Amino acid sequence: MPNRYAYLGPEGTFTEAALRALRPDESGEFIPCSGVDAVFAAVRSGAADSGVAPLENSVEGGVTATIAELINGAPLLIAAEVAVPVEFTLFAREGVRLADVKRVATHAHALAQCRGWLAEHLPDAETFTVSSTAAAARAVAEPGAPYDAAIAARVAGERYHLTAVAEGVGDRSDAATRFVHLVRPGPLPAPTGADRTSLVAFLSDDHPGALVELLDQFAVRGVNLTRLESRPTGDGLGRYCFCLDADGHVAEARVGEALMGLRRICKDIRFLGSYPRADADTELTPFMPARGTSNADFHEAEQWLAHIRAGQVA
Amino acid sequence: MPNRYAYLGPEGTFTEAALRALRPDESGEFIPCSGVDAVFAAVRSGAADSGVAPLENSVEGGVTATIAELINGAPLLIAAEVAVPVEFTLFAREGVRLADVKRVATHAHALAQCRGWLAEHLPDAETFTVSSTAAAARAVAEPGAPYDAAIAARVAGERYHLTAVAEGVGDRSDAATRFVHLVRPGPLPAPTGADRTSLVAFLSDDHPGALVELLDQFAVRGVNLTRLESRPTGDGLGRYCFCLDADGHVAEARVGEALMGLRRICKDIRFLGSYPRADADTELTPFMPARGTSNADFHEAEQWLAHIRAGQVA
Amino acid sequence: MPNRYAYLGPEGTFTEAALRALRPDESGEFIPCSGVDAVFAAVRSGAADSGVAPLENSVEGGVTATIAELINGAPLLIAAEVAVPVEFTLFAREGVRLADVKRVATHAHALAQCRGWLAEHLPDAETFTVSSTAAAARAVAEPGAPYDAAIAARVAGERYHLTAVAEGVGDRSDAATRFVHLVRPGPLPAPTGADRTSLVAFLSDDHPGALVELLDQFAVRGVNLTRLESRPTGDGLGRYCFCLDADGHVAEARVGEALMGLRRICKDIRFLGSYPRADADTELTPFMPARGTSNADFHEAEQWLAHIRAGQVA
Amino acid sequence: MPNRYAYLGPEGTFTEAALRALRPDESGEFIPCSGVDAVFAAVRSGAADSGVAPLENSVEGGVTATIAELINGAPLLIAAEVAVPVEFTLFAREGVRLADVKRVATHAHALAQCRGWLAEHLPDAETFTVSSTAAAARAVAEPGAPYDAAIAARVAGERYHLTAVAEGVGDRSDAATRFVHLVRPGPLPAPTGADRTSLVAFLSDDHPGALVELLDQFAVRGVNLTRLESRPTGDGLGRYCFCLDADGHVAEARVGEALMGLRRICKDIRFLGSYPRADADTELTPFMPARGTSNADFHEAEQWLAHIRAGQVA
Repeated sequence: MPNRYAYLGPEGTFTEAALRALRPDESGEFIPCSGVDAVFAAVRSGAADSGVAPLENSVEGGVTATIAELINGAPLLIAAEVAVPVEFTLFAREGVRLADVKRVATHAHALAQCRGWLAEHLPDAETFTVSSTAAAARAVAEPGAPYDAAIAARVAGERYHLTAVAEGVGDRSDAATRFVHLVRPGPLPAPTGADRTSLVAFLSDDHPGALVELLDQFAVRGVNLTRLESRPTGDGLGRYCFCLDADGHVAEARVGEALMGLRRICKDIRFLGSYPRADADTELTPFMPARGTSNADFHEAEQWLAHIRAGQVA
Repeated sequence: MPNRYAYLGPEGTFTEAALRALRPDESGEFIPCSGVDAVFAAVRSGAADSGVAPLENSVEGGVTATIAELINGAPLLIAAEVAVPVEFTLFAREGVRLADVKRVATHAHALAQCRGWLAEHLPDAETFTVSSTAAAARAVAEPGAPYDAAIAARVAGERYHLTAVAEGVGDRSDAATRFVHLVRPGPLPAPTGADRTSLVAFLSDDHPGALVELLDQFAVRGVNLTRLESRPTGDGLGRYCFCLDADGHVAEARVGEALMGLRRICKDIRFLGSYPRADADTELTPFMPARGTSNADFHEAEQWLAHIRAGQVA
Repeated sequence: MPNRYAYLGPEGTFTEAALRALRPDESGEFIPCSGVDAVFAAVRSGAADSGVAPLENSVEGGVTATIAELINGAPLLIAAEVAVPVEFTLFAREGVRLADVKRVATHAHALAQCRGWLAEHLPDAETFTVSSTAAAARAVAEPGAPYDAAIAARVAGERYHLTAVAEGVGDRSDAATRFVHLVRPGPLPAPTGADRTSLVAFLSDDHPGALVELLDQFAVRGVNLTRLESRPTGDGLGRYCFCLDADGHVAEARVGEALMGLRRICKDIRFLGSYPRADADTELTPFMPARGTSNADFHEAEQWLAHIRAGQVA
Repeated sequence: MPNRYAYLGPEGTFTEAALRALRPDESGEFIPCSGVDAVFAAVRSGAADSGVAPLENSVEGGVTATIAELINGAPLLIAAEVAVPVEFTLFAREGVRLADVKRVATHAHALAQCRGWLAEHLPDAETFTVSSTAAAARAVAEPGAPYDAAIAARVAGERYHLTAVAEGVGDRSDAATRFVHLVRPGPLPAPTGADRTSLVAFLSDDHPGALVELLDQFAVRGVNLTRLESRPTGDGLGRYCFCLDADGHVAEARVGEALMGLRRICKDIRFLGSYPRADADTELTPFMPARGTSNADFHEAEQWLAHIRAGQVA
């Protein structure tokens, strides 16, 4: 029986591109979902074996819906991540020229990333935000479409048989979105030597130094944080929890020790998974444990402590 | 000549309600703008004397467009803030009953905050996101409207002569949005004893302890942080800057010293203003300087240092 | 065969009083040694089963000779500690009156603690420092003694058949000396719930924050330091190592974790023992683990981590 | 009228050598004192214009008597420091050979530093500690001397007309003692760019992190500590204050800010002076302010803050 993958649909989204990059083999059933919440629901219920959703974008920041689902509801784990370059294309039905475009549909995040181009090339066009870039493309392809054009991923144009009116309409050529592969709790991916661990921390109370204490738990073990994002807890203005990504795998001593430290000082911790880093082989992120915090250092110190505890000091 | 206030329109938005709460007098010209970017542009260009925009919501988090404008472009300062309770109403044209509602329009943030109610009471309705809750109300009021109902603020229903089909449709009754009053750089509001200072910090480099160092600059002076939000710098995944709110006014010694510390260790700092706290009189946020960090403590230490430097030790 | 106890002699020293307080039973052979180095040598060589030496005094500070021996040479462990009140008596041969005393002998530390009394009551007396207060008493008792009187412990006067010319001649009535019971490396005393751990840390390099990093290793695990004393390494001015006493037993998770942290970041660590606190039952030092750092907290966090690592998140 | 210099006598001490190195000109009256307390008393009373005393030794550590006087009593300031290499010579009356030496006198610190040599070359000699190495030399020179030889500085041998029986009898050839020049409170020495600031800190209370907080006050301003020595307050075991040496002059912004921070969080601070470093031109201690903590950085940040406070953000 093939693997069933839920993803943020409809067909043709950047998320579908991410899913194609993430899944281990060519087989499998793709289940497009109408929202991030539906992706999570499908995985939680077992309707899908796993799911893919966007987590953050290099221009827009964290994807609120995904983060909200990760924080709340039945826990899912991140089993993998992938970064997909965001390349936007303006699609229309065949025969439509740029000058004809008066109504442009796309997703809100995409719109935000194409504002500059639109202001320059389509200053008079009205813009509409829909549930996804692919939904915009699909809508444009329908008879009697309310929009003249859609900003979407290349794959969406292909799927809905649209014509590229303009390519590279994003304001930044280096934009990227990070997607995560979600599974129900179970055995974690084995450490690869270049992993990432994600979690959510709810501070015990709002005393001034609480966040510093939390960060110290990582710093003292030489664990580097690659993302720190505050999210409202929903309990009123000024109440936040923190979504953290850290270098390393929870199976490693240094990460395990840091997480135990958080567990002790935080009101609550939600573990979101340890998984291979998507950028493990890029120059941006060389793996350099701080002085005294390599796994070998931890192992040596454990051996030393065992001797000390046994009274073997010589 | 009356004050001209730009705000996130159209008429009937929560932002208009915030503006009414913020402005000092009843006079003044209100200039609704089609987006947060337009509000900033109006203030920057002088087309408006000041502007109002949402900064964060207790459920959805930071408002990306506002934060992006605060970080980038010509600097504006926050001169005041106000928190507005978010109470959502489902509006329709007269005669429409709940059972008739098939297509609901609202802003994306509002939609996110009403999902639970919609799932329960309008499970089959289609939802559409438009540029604001007020725009949704206005669209519903138009002849031949593409939507049956709008989720919006009470003031929007009044302005567009709609009928409340259901009140309190938000999933959380305690949700609130924080709005800021934006002005061009100039003299700061005088300290009131219960102020807030906002800024954006770009860390000098990505070494593991950089964020801890930044937070230490506050902790050592006993300055409490009330918000810490990372935002992508736009230069690729994994690159963030930090938006900070701190207790106190930059005119105070302890805040001034902390900001000088940030200035020295950060690649860049953008000061966003010192202004009275909206929650100064609530129980949630009593003003309690940490041991040794009251303004009196700073004054006494300055006097002491002056004596020391003069060799007057006795 | 009775236990053989080396101690800083000769007979009648405060160290002998400490030994009487420390040893578990009435039997045992007492071996007075002429110096702290001789005490250590006797234990190291096996000539004695254990030894007793002064570690610090509440007025004079650390006892350099003892600390030097603990840091250098073959390692010994501290198996117990005791605090002995320092009550000084001025002793002379029978018939000598205070007015007759021109030459007073005692140990350098004792002299320092009686300066005020001597200045007031014997302003014209010459003072001499000898190897111990008991040696001073013994010298005074000898025929043709070069000194008229000795400042020593009460037990010394009894042993050498001297008369108390004046009692309570110390400048501070609350002075005390802390003595340690030294043994060759072997099984540690079992944790009692109120223990102390001693060690010496050699920092890896002299970068400004090295000592803060060291202290953070304790702070993050909520381990309280009760003593921090720098000692020169002997390698020139400005080169120090640090002698530390911490609350807790190395068998406890929080102390063990802190010591592993030190081991990883320090150039060298010498463990000096975990042993019951002498002041466990005094009001001065209630046992209060910081938030999240009780042994129960550590145990719970370990259980949690085990679940996390097994993918059991629910 | 010549300057009157009090110093730890008698004539021929290492302290006299330090005084000769410290005083600015050849004139001046030298006043040998019988103890460190007498040196302080002479300066405090005005009997001397200034004084010289040993502060720490690279083998023995801090000189307790000097530190006690700096902490207690009427305040004096350190106006200068000098490091004097400790080279010990064994002196005797003419004609005495090494084999004849049965009784050796010297100061306790000197004895500690020559133990190895004595154990090897004079294993059977009895040792006596007197108030100074010079006093030992003087005593040996007297008719009917109770000692055969003295370990002292070369200058002492010359002054008391003794013969060097053996040179370099110290166990370490690189030992040095740091001496300080003491004056009554008054104008401080001008900053030289390579200065040191000394002070004593009494922590506000004994909570676990108090020392870390103190060190953070320095770390946050990039002020390097070159010495941290705990001393008992005298109020019982377990009560300490901390003697600190820091790089820089109190007239500098970064040092001034750090000291104000200490003033605010400590129960008490005693300022002991800012003065040129004796090791300013050695390789051991290059002057390298940490990132963002040069005086220029502080000046720039002050300018920036002034602009911010004036609302000049552009």
